[in-house]
Amino acid sequence: MIPYRAGRLVKLQPEVDSPAQPRCAAANGRSLILLLWWTRKQLISGERLFSPLPLGNATTADDALTLQEHGNYALCFGVFPSRNSFQNFFPLVNFFGRSGDTCWYIKPIWGMAKGEGRKGDALTEMESFDKTFAYILDELTTADQDPGVKEALVWFRRVLEFNVPHGKKNRGLSVVATYKLLKRSSHIPEEDDQQAAILGWCVEMLQAFFLVADDIMDQSHTRRGQPCWYKTKDVGLVAINDAFFLENAVYSLIKSHFSGQPCYVKILELFHEVTMQTITGQCLDMVSSRPDEPLDFTRFTSQRYDSIVKYKTAYYSFYLPVALAMYLAGIYDADSHQRAKVILLEMGHFFQVQDDYLDCYGEPEVLGKIGTDIQDKKCGWLIVEALKLCSPEQRQSLEKNYGIDTAENIAAVKEVYRALGMEDIYRQFEEDSAVRIKGLIKQFSGELPESIFESFFNKIFKRNK
Amino acid sequence: MIPYRAGRLVKLQPEVDSPAQPRCAAANGRSLILLLWWTRKQLISGERLFSPLPLGNATTADDALTLQEHGNYALCFGVFPSRNSFQNFFPLVNFFGRSGDTCWYIKPIWGMAKGEGRKGDALTEMESFDKTFAYILDELTTADQDPGVKEALVWFRRVLEFNVPHGKKNRGLSVVATYKLLKRSSHIPEEDDQQAAILGWCVEMLQAFFLVADDIMDQSHTRRGQPCWYKTKDVGLVAINDAFFLENAVYSLIKSHFSGQPCYVKILELFHEVTMQTITGQCLDMVSSRPDEPLDFTRFTSQRYDSIVKYKTAYYSFYLPVALAMYLAGIYDADSHQRAKVILLEMGHFFQVQDDYLDCYGEPEVLGKIGTDIQDKKCGWLIVEALKLCSPEQRQSLEKNYGIDTAENIAAVKEVYRALGMEDIYRQFEEDSAVRIKGLIKQFSGELPESIFESFFNKIFKRNK
Repeated sequence: MIPYRAGRLVKLQPEVDSPAQPRCAAANGRSLILLLWWTRKQLISGERLFSPLPLGNATTADDALTLQEHGNYALCFGVFPSRNSFQNFFPLVNFFGRSGDTCWYIKPIWGMAKGEGRKGDALTEMESFDKTFAYILDELTTADQDPGVKEALVWFRRVLEFNVPHGKKNRGLSVVATYKLLKRSSHIPEEDDQQAAILGWCVEMLQAFFLVADDIMDQSHTRRGQPCWYKTKDVGLVAINDAFFLENAVYSLIKSHFSGQPCYVKILELFHEVTMQTITGQCLDMVSSRPDEPLDFTRFTSQRYDSIVKYKTAYYSFYLPVALAMYLAGIYDADSHQRAKVILLEMGHFFQVQDDYLDCYGEPEVLGKIGTDIQDKKCGWLIVEALKLCSPEQRQSLEKNYGIDTAENIAAVKEVYRALGMEDIYRQFEEDSAVRIKGLIKQFSGELPESIFESFFNKIFKRNK
Repeated sequence: MIPYRAGRLVKLQPEVDSPAQPRCAAANGRSLILLLWWTRKQLISGERLFSPLPLGNATTADDALTLQEHGNYALCFGVFPSRNSFQNFFPLVNFFGRSGDTCWYIKPIWGMAKGEGRKGDALTEMESFDKTFAYILDELTTADQDPGVKEALVWFRRVLEFNVPHGKKNRGLSVVATYKLLKRSSHIPEEDDQQAAILGWCVEMLQAFFLVADDIMDQSHTRRGQPCWYKTKDVGLVAINDAFFLENAVYSLIKSHFSGQPCYVKILELFHEVTMQTITGQCLDMVSSRPDEPLDFTRFTSQRYDSIVKYKTAYYSFYLPVALAMYLAGIYDADSHQRAKVILLEMGHFFQVQDDYLDCYGEPEVLGKIGTDIQDKKCGWLIVEALKLCSPEQRQSLEKNYGIDTAENIAAVKEVYRALGMEDIYRQFEEDSAVRIKGLIKQFSGELPESIFESFFNKIFKRNK
């Protein structure tokens, strides 16, 4: 079972200056949800939504949905196997209602499918990747010889379905994309392609493991617009064991698909190493800013920030997918891996700075969440840079207001950011980063095709979610 | 640094019918703690304390102490590097005070060492094993090239010191003992011995990973007579990440010590497989008895109990240590491993039944904890067996009282157990198990020396803690 996939685009009349009307359509014999998501400001500014992708191209819009832009409206839709599964995706749907200048609207409509879906089209990359997940799900949870564990497998299936396939899947898809580029051919035998997709899902499962655990540690409430797994009915702290399952399922898959191949041990060791790096980054992050300790700006240094980002995010999000594709393509030499690492860790750093910027300046309706770094006392890029630039008075204001969860305190911090021109400083950083990363790609690609780094970079540059 | 080790036994005058007086002694240039632990009932019955070991033999008595019996008193002592480290071990020391028929007494005394310790003695197995831990601690937490992660390594050192070396270490020592028996020689080169000890510590670290996480999931307060790690100052839910660290440190050690050896991949795969089995067992256990759901005795079946025990405990505690020693000794054939598994899983089952029995009938002062299975609504051996034997009235009483944390409800459950003769039923089970397991050893050892199973079994049979 594939829990959701892109449906067929249905023609709609654009309705200007009022919320567009949602419609229903049928596809592939499954029930279809069709959502209309439209913002005047975004449409006017053009670049805020989906840039740098050209209008009209399909891309992932939300964690659970496919999005298309058509002229002056954006259409967001997906197929769900049941009404329940839809409701699991959007328990917070009312949260999206809003009015004012950036007025926009999202409304789910439930309709029964009639099986008139697309025919004869080739599967998109995403569809093909999702197909592999359906296969993995069965492999990991199909009854063992031992009937005694059946109940655990039923539970683990739920864990996988809830936590793994609903992200943007950038990391997983990167394994496949990089592998294809490395083979420098558009006609890869289906099986190899499938192997790259399995490694891609291993990265997605590793990420799910981190996220399930992080949400418990941070006491978060929502993730990807729905309640966190541990906040879900009947789950609670069992989620810790479920995180272990997600982590270890990676090794089950690697053994069953790669055992005996030359890349097998390299892949195992890479996952162990990157897991340890991420755990180290998480530890650095948590010992640096403890929610119960008083604010201490002397700990908010660039060095610390850089280390946390490198260990907690960059290794697993950027180096891991490319390194896996390299091993699968038979590239084992330490020099090539070292070169790729230099470029990819820099990209990972840039990605995290973006994330920190968007937490404060991103549009909640595009991000799918409201940023909370200021009130959460996070050691993020904005505060680290602001502390370098601020006057003694401004620093005093930041010290008084950072990490306190009231509208006034948050506004006071944002006012200092405004006075310092943090948006412009970020724009400048963004431009400088593009130049620096392009330089690194030229300098370090060596025998690797530059396209593997360029395509990765293009996916993240100027993102707004 | 070795956090504690056996000291030299100091001669004492036995003092009958009154708490023996604690004395101080010096050993090995470190501070020494000397504890006297004595119970009249235990001394009279003879078998309650330390059987099946003969009087006069040293054995581990407590998680942190070495214990010796001398005539009619038991002496319990250990060496601690500092007063603080002693107090960390015994924050609950007052808990041990008690009076009445089973009157006994434990009192710590702090004295400074004068360096007159043992000289020229060979290291005991435990001392030698502990020496390896000191080495591992340095290997895992010595500064990386990257100074940015130093703070994380300092934290991880604390995680390792607190959680790994203070258990009974039966599982870890079994790897060494089994390996020695497999080599059928008392003169193993030091290095090989060291390799077995490293694998032994990997098992202890894996167990620490499970225990740190289980304590959070069960919301436990104490473990091994001290507060749980997540309950320790400055820790809290960061403990989840620390559990991941303990798990993944196993793979760092395996890589650095076994990479390139023929057993390397087998050992990696074994740890992955056993981890997954334990996670599956934990899942079965947690979905079976949820604290927030009403009691449902229809779920308390022998089949379910057997599955939980096999997956959650037996694989990692019994099969894993022996299988690791087998791989290290070059025994790879699936048949030998399958044979060993049959015997060891049966022993693991027996061990868990003992555990469940002791939870209700063990002496809290010997166990180091007060059992809580009845009030915790646990699906344990006693309740599963009682449900098979009870009358409709007795079942009604169990249904009314099981899983409720008041003295009256617990007493009512224990009264049904008493009426059913559960103590005698356990004794019979114990005898039957000894016969059955000895039969399996004869039947399945094949080319493996029977002694590896016998010595394992002798360590657990008729234990009282």
